[in-house]
Amino acid sequence: MTDTTTTDSASPAPSRRALIGWGGAGLALGAAAAGGAVAIARPHDDTESAQAATGGAVAFHGAHQAGIATAVQDRLHFAAFDVKTTERAALVQMLKDWTEAARRMTAGRAVGEGAFGGLAEAPPDDTGEALGLKPSRLTLTIGFGPSFFEKFGLADKRPDALVDLPHFPGDNLEKSRSGGDLCVQACADDPQVAVHAIRNLARIGFGKVAVRWSQLGFGKTSSTTPDAQTPRNLFGFKDGTSNIAGTETDRLKKFVWADDGDGSDWMAGGSYLVARRIRMNIETWDRTSLQEQEDVFGRDKGEGAPAGKAKEHDKPFLKAMKPTAHVRLAHPEANDGITILRRGYSFTDGTDGLGRLDAGLFFLAYQRDPRKGFIPLQRRLAASDALNEYIQHVGSAVFAIPPGVRDQNDWWGRTLLTEEA
Amino acid sequence: MTDTTTTDSASPAPSRRALIGWGGAGLALGAAAAGGAVAIARPHDDTESAQAATGGAVAFHGAHQAGIATAVQDRLHFAAFDVKTTERAALVQMLKDWTEAARRMTAGRAVGEGAFGGLAEAPPDDTGEALGLKPSRLTLTIGFGPSFFEKFGLADKRPDALVDLPHFPGDNLEKSRSGGDLCVQACADDPQVAVHAIRNLARIGFGKVAVRWSQLGFGKTSSTTPDAQTPRNLFGFKDGTSNIAGTETDRLKKFVWADDGDGSDWMAGGSYLVARRIRMNIETWDRTSLQEQEDVFGRDKGEGAPAGKAKEHDKPFLKAMKPTAHVRLAHPEANDGITILRRGYSFTDGTDGLGRLDAGLFFLAYQRDPRKGFIPLQRRLAASDALNEYIQHVGSAVFAIPPGVRDQNDWWGRTLLTEEA
Ligand code: HEM
Ligand code: HEM
Repeated sequence: MTDTTTTDSASPAPSRRALIGWGGAGLALGAAAAGGAVAIARPHDDTESAQAATGGAVAFHGAHQAGIATAVQDRLHFAAFDVKTTERAALVQMLKDWTEAARRMTAGRAVGEGAFGGLAEAPPDDTGEALGLKPSRLTLTIGFGPSFFEKFGLADKRPDALVDLPHFPGDNLEKSRSGGDLCVQACADDPQVAVHAIRNLARIGFGKVAVRWSQLGFGKTSSTTPDAQTPRNLFGFKDGTSNIAGTETDRLKKFVWADDGDGSDWMAGGSYLVARRIRMNIETWDRTSLQEQEDVFGRDKGEGAPAGKAKEHDKPFLKAMKPTAHVRLAHPEANDGITILRRGYSFTDGTDGLGRLDAGLFFLAYQRDPRKGFIPLQRRLAASDALNEYIQHVGSAVFAIPPGVRDQNDWWGRTLLTEEA
Repeated sequence: MTDTTTTDSASPAPSRRALIGWGGAGLALGAAAAGGAVAIARPHDDTESAQAATGGAVAFHGAHQAGIATAVQDRLHFAAFDVKTTERAALVQMLKDWTEAARRMTAGRAVGEGAFGGLAEAPPDDTGEALGLKPSRLTLTIGFGPSFFEKFGLADKRPDALVDLPHFPGDNLEKSRSGGDLCVQACADDPQVAVHAIRNLARIGFGKVAVRWSQLGFGKTSSTTPDAQTPRNLFGFKDGTSNIAGTETDRLKKFVWADDGDGSDWMAGGSYLVARRIRMNIETWDRTSLQEQEDVFGRDKGEGAPAGKAKEHDKPFLKAMKPTAHVRLAHPEANDGITILRRGYSFTDGTDGLGRLDAGLFFLAYQRDPRKGFIPLQRRLAASDALNEYIQHVGSAVFAIPPGVRDQNDWWGRTLLTEEA
């Protein structure tokens, strides 16, 4: 069993395979048309840069699902689904089919052996638009929402930590962008690969689940690799500076991974995800002075250094910041040590009918328990954050993220849906 | 004067500069904070691959605007604007400011010298979220819509070729996704760079123009580089196989660039753009047999070969295709030689409220005269194309794309808006 935390970003992993996609050469394309991918084991290509250069694959099997501690990919396609079937067996079969499809797609392969070599009279196994593209570090991460547990008599398995989020001051949530029985987070360095993955899962789930809402993220706003350049959010600030790194096994264990002692055995090795669509009022922000912008965050804009300090990674001195500064309010020191793993993406979804960009942050936070993570933090921020003048939360969802798929025979949700478990 | 056609993708161009952005190193970041970019002339790095490797800059000045014959970048942010000011001088000043900002941003520099080094009491010159990113082959291409010419007494300058598009059978156009006085097409290999560019132009134009609609494209659906791998659209087919290549000077001259003889002197070296938001019914398509899918296009799905042929680039034999096949109907041979340059992008904008992906093709076609390009072609397709069962046109706009900005003193729209011109 491979721990994705380790294989994704730290030590050499014999299970790592870099897949040559169907890219470029005519020869490789021929293989693609025949439905196969050329897999070459490269046990030593385990660094981020080697992965990026080869458009490499991230290991799908592991104690934890990939896509959490995994070094953040460039693009996101996130979908929340409603379950339509009332038959447990049909749902379980779909989750098994999803798992197999996810296993193949994250390895850079088409769904189903046939690709376009199957029967001409049948729909192709794979929709095809990712043919010729590299694995692009695709990860697929599944989650179960509170409403899922009401179905199939699973109420007693609902983890205590999976609470319904309370209403926060300033929330202006749209129902059509909130909730969901299931979610899948698809992250990849190529958006076409992420979109392809969600679309094929939706296709496989046809009749059993329906997409409730979905969100495309065009640029990451946080990093889980301390050595990488910190990405900037749409307010122009470096975002993710103080994030938990994917290599910090101790902090991950403490703040991100659920364990046996947490009350729900089936969740051991899993986590909890809070997703918030946060609209950013770009136009108002852009007319705000640099001083005000820096005061809002408590960090400077160019370098990203905490107020009064010189360098981005200098330790923040909270008292040098305004009492309403975002970082001052969100910092663990001011919150009994509360720490979350942020993994959000910027979005731009056209305009809002008033000539303003409909843009913002699709905020994703992973934690061991939302009652000790997002909820108290957001209570604090919703009450006092200077940033509130420029943002609005418009979508919200929370999901239990089960542990990783262990091997070829395992499947998404097994620990929850197998009677014996 | 540099011709972008040549410098973008063909012969060595002494004016090509590869710009080292503010990437990675702390030293470079320091330079960025001080508002400068480190420009290093690299006269021999003129190939696409060298450009891509350096996240290079595409020349802004030229006889034609970049972003048309330029090798298609990976991502798009397109915006249509309504002009709000009634003062011609204010509009001209804004176009000059836009030009200067475009000149800087396409070179990978921040807008304005100050970056974040300016006065703390003023809004920063640049919104900042592209700081640290490479130029990413950003191109910015401006256009003037029919409605623009009614304003400022310019009706007599409206080119004959800039007709209002007729209604086509099957059109289901949303007003809020159609039309516009001005447009800017931003293409880049990094979406954050494209989004940043549109947002900063909107900011500079505040009070004078307002965004009417905008569209993010996450993946290119055509290529203008014959040697590159042809991208696939959301129906899984290679798209752009028979496109005009950016290096085909003769076909560009014949089919894409307007010239003096075309009636509007100020448009010489320009072109005409038709933009159509085309919704693709992904779910229906995905349940269609491979045979039907291939019949719809008249090409096979794996290789992209024309019906009855073996290889993608084999010459199509139209009679081997169904009479309603998209390629059979759209091919120049069947249309008195009509040829357009396609430069579209796939989009995915969440879901449609019915559990279906709101996805499709943001179709962009450049031509010398829409009356001899898009209009007759689309008449034919709208009447008979087998593809119509799976698509719907929901947005539409047409723009006159003026010639390129020639040098440091030139500006977008000068040939149209200068009295003497
Ligand atoms: C659009 C909304 C938001 C924006 C633009 C934003 C931006 C930022 C920025 C620029 C930083 C400083 C750099 C860093 O350490 O990452 C930061 C830090 C942080 N933010 Fe946010 N944030 C937003 C919403 C939230 C929300 C909703 C939460 C949680 C409820 C949150 C929690 C945090 C935390 C925990 C930190 C780290 C503080 C520290 O340890 O110093 N943020 N955010
Ligand atoms: C969602 C809508 C559309 C899709 C999915 C689509 C897809 C394709 C595909 C797969 C090809 C074959 C490969 C190639 O040569 O590029 C093609 C060719 C072509 N399409 Fe489309 N297309 C769409 C709409 C349009 C529209 C609206 C027009 C123009 C009015 C158009 C004009 C053409 C032309 C001119 C060709 C080249 C034909 C040839 O020279 O062989 N297409 N299209």
